[in-house]
Amino acid sequence: MRQVAVIGAGMTRFGKHVGRSMKDLAREAVEGALRSAGIEKDAIEAAAVGNAVAGLITGQECVRGQVVLREMGIGGIPVINTENACASASTAFHLAWLYVASGMYDVVLAVGMEKLFHPDKKRTFAAIGSGIDVELADEFARQMSGEQSAGAGEARSVFMDYYANITRQHMARYGTTREQFARIAAKNHTNGSLNPHAQYQTPRTVAEVLTAPMIAEPLTRMMCSPIGDGAAAVLVTTTEKARQLTTKPVLVRASVLGSSEDHAPHTPNVVAKVARKAYALAGIGPQELQVVEVHDATAPAELLAYEDLDLCRAGEGGRLIDDGVTALGGRVPVNPSGGLLAKGHPVGATGVAQIAEIFWQLRGEAGKRQVSSARVGLTENGGGVIRGENAAAAVHIFTV
Amino acid sequence: MRQVAVIGAGMTRFGKHVGRSMKDLAREAVEGALRSAGIEKDAIEAAAVGNAVAGLITGQECVRGQVVLREMGIGGIPVINTENACASASTAFHLAWLYVASGMYDVVLAVGMEKLFHPDKKRTFAAIGSGIDVELADEFARQMSGEQSAGAGEARSVFMDYYANITRQHMARYGTTREQFARIAAKNHTNGSLNPHAQYQTPRTVAEVLTAPMIAEPLTRMMCSPIGDGAAAVLVTTTEKARQLTTKPVLVRASVLGSSEDHAPHTPNVVAKVARKAYALAGIGPQELQVVEVHDATAPAELLAYEDLDLCRAGEGGRLIDDGVTALGGRVPVNPSGGLLAKGHPVGATGVAQIAEIFWQLRGEAGKRQVSSARVGLTENGGGVIRGENAAAAVHIFTV
Repeated sequence: MRQVAVIGAGMTRFGKHVGRSMKDLAREAVEGALRSAGIEKDAIEAAAVGNAVAGLITGQECVRGQVVLREMGIGGIPVINTENACASASTAFHLAWLYVASGMYDVVLAVGMEKLFHPDKKRTFAAIGSGIDVELADEFARQMSGEQSAGAGEARSVFMDYYANITRQHMARYGTTREQFARIAAKNHTNGSLNPHAQYQTPRTVAEVLTAPMIAEPLTRMMCSPIGDGAAAVLVTTTEKARQLTTKPVLVRASVLGSSEDHAPHTPNVVAKVARKAYALAGIGPQELQVVEVHDATAPAELLAYEDLDLCRAGEGGRLIDDGVTALGGRVPVNPSGGLLAKGHPVGATGVAQIAEIFWQLRGEAGKRQVSSARVGLTENGGGVIRGENAAAAVHIFTV
Repeated sequence: MRQVAVIGAGMTRFGKHVGRSMKDLAREAVEGALRSAGIEKDAIEAAAVGNAVAGLITGQECVRGQVVLREMGIGGIPVINTENACASASTAFHLAWLYVASGMYDVVLAVGMEKLFHPDKKRTFAAIGSGIDVELADEFARQMSGEQSAGAGEARSVFMDYYANITRQHMARYGTTREQFARIAAKNHTNGSLNPHAQYQTPRTVAEVLTAPMIAEPLTRMMCSPIGDGAAAVLVTTTEKARQLTTKPVLVRASVLGSSEDHAPHTPNVVAKVARKAYALAGIGPQELQVVEVHDATAPAELLAYEDLDLCRAGEGGRLIDDGVTALGGRVPVNPSGGLLAKGHPVGATGVAQIAEIFWQLRGEAGKRQVSSARVGLTENGGGVIRGENAAAAVHIFTV
């Protein structure tokens, strides 16, 4: 397979874009990626477009990619519409990478896009909740309602119950504390304050996180990613062609997608398995990572990702955040962008936005949130929940 | 890129499966493909799953593939959910092919699946209608309502108006007649009567087609594909591995996907452009084809496909059907399966069902509808409509 490089990235600010269409958001992201790469749209030979829930939000169930791309004058090329819940955009990136790696096309666009805000909030929640087996959803809701669960908040959905449940399990098993989860949220909100693309740009303290409204015990609102709209885009090509176009190509060293399966308790989950495969393919171990973006749909999800990605051993995630290892300035900063918690989480855009962040970090273009001299980065993006773990997971490793 | 072969195919009968879930339909198709290939499900290394409208029909907007595959004990593998309206399944096949061709995985499953029937017919029509730019849909409806358009029938949707419009253009430009379109429909219904998987298995005469209820002038109901449920699955692997597993591998000689773009009137449309690229990649010309499955969402769509695929010159499609060239027993039988008109058109299943048909034809396993000694086949699958032509088109060429 050919070696592939990222040559450009663009994204909208994530947030509430009620007055803007998905076409408009996607255009801003794609035009940003083209400018970043220094190429024209006519150079794009194929596109993979990730989106999770437009069918339920806008009724645009089909040909979502063609609808937005044609509007900006991009047509006549293969357009693959893909979905993997919150991992839709990294799946799109995986396919763009695959097109180039396979030898079929040389310059491929990956777009992630989502509008979650809808005047009828129920529609937004129904859309987000469709990342599980909807036939089993009622049963799932019944199981959860027996346990402690409080109030309905902005980010409340069946996923928050799922995360609350695994959070309580981690606390019971390893003694992880609410303060440690709060520390992750405070870190990410503080990182977000340095990122002009972030939905939330206000630094937060641990005390503020802990006293925010409770969504699902022990998760407060600031420990949960918000509802958001947005789009992100990147361009990939062969490493050879990338070197002609830029002095700073960002090489894709591994692109691995996986899904959940039945496995024994306390054995590696889908994220851990996909990460290990990615490390093996890249020939790069977790100790070599210098900047990481993970899928912090909630603060505990980031802590669990530390362990699944082998940044530390099982049960030691709390110590990693306490020791400042994953903060900006630490040994391996995680979510310098602000992560899903502060940058935001327009679900079908998230995976490509994570890759855009690593692209900027490895090129030294990350502004006030720059991780100094980072040369090795990783993204981890999870999507949906089936039988208690992510239905889809994607891990990508990059180097300069 | 590695050469890829199809080693197994399975499908449900297409039709009204109100009492069966999509999981149940997909299971029948996948188990059929596994039996056909003589391999176990554990051999599957990745899956691409095409579906167009489950989000609007069942609310399962996300992780549709994982939901059905996990149910049948298939997990832990990359699952790519993909959509391209009526070309969703051939896009899934394209991705399965790409995984193998690229060298990433050796045995990959492609599934197409759809449930269109819903107790609320409006929901079915809204779902089918979402294959256009829904923001522009109202404007489109306004444009069409000025022209002659009659009654609402089972298969009526905005697409029937679109097809009626291009049909009238072809009649005006080339003198093509209603009888010629009716002859295509009669041929396909007669072929469908030989296919146990077909939704409609009653032979029809030209007179019966012409006197069926009018959907949108000049299209009668029998010239329009029906609403249907169903699933189809195929397995692909390297040609090398295929030869170890079977004495009759069906080689994929070209797999090409494209989308529409602005172009001058009477210049090649997306189907024609994709087909020409496929012929070039395969090193096989239209005159070498021995069996073809095309996207006859309506009878005129098949006639137009004759011309777009260069089975005849522009304007000569009517003569091709009159001369019996595309009938069973003709020089190049088209839609021996009964096509979308008679076999049925559960949109997200269609593309893989077409490929399954060519697989069976080239292996001599097509029963009463067998095209004798066919060694070269093609499938053409279109999806969605943007600015008056298919938003997506996929052409595949196969040989034994």
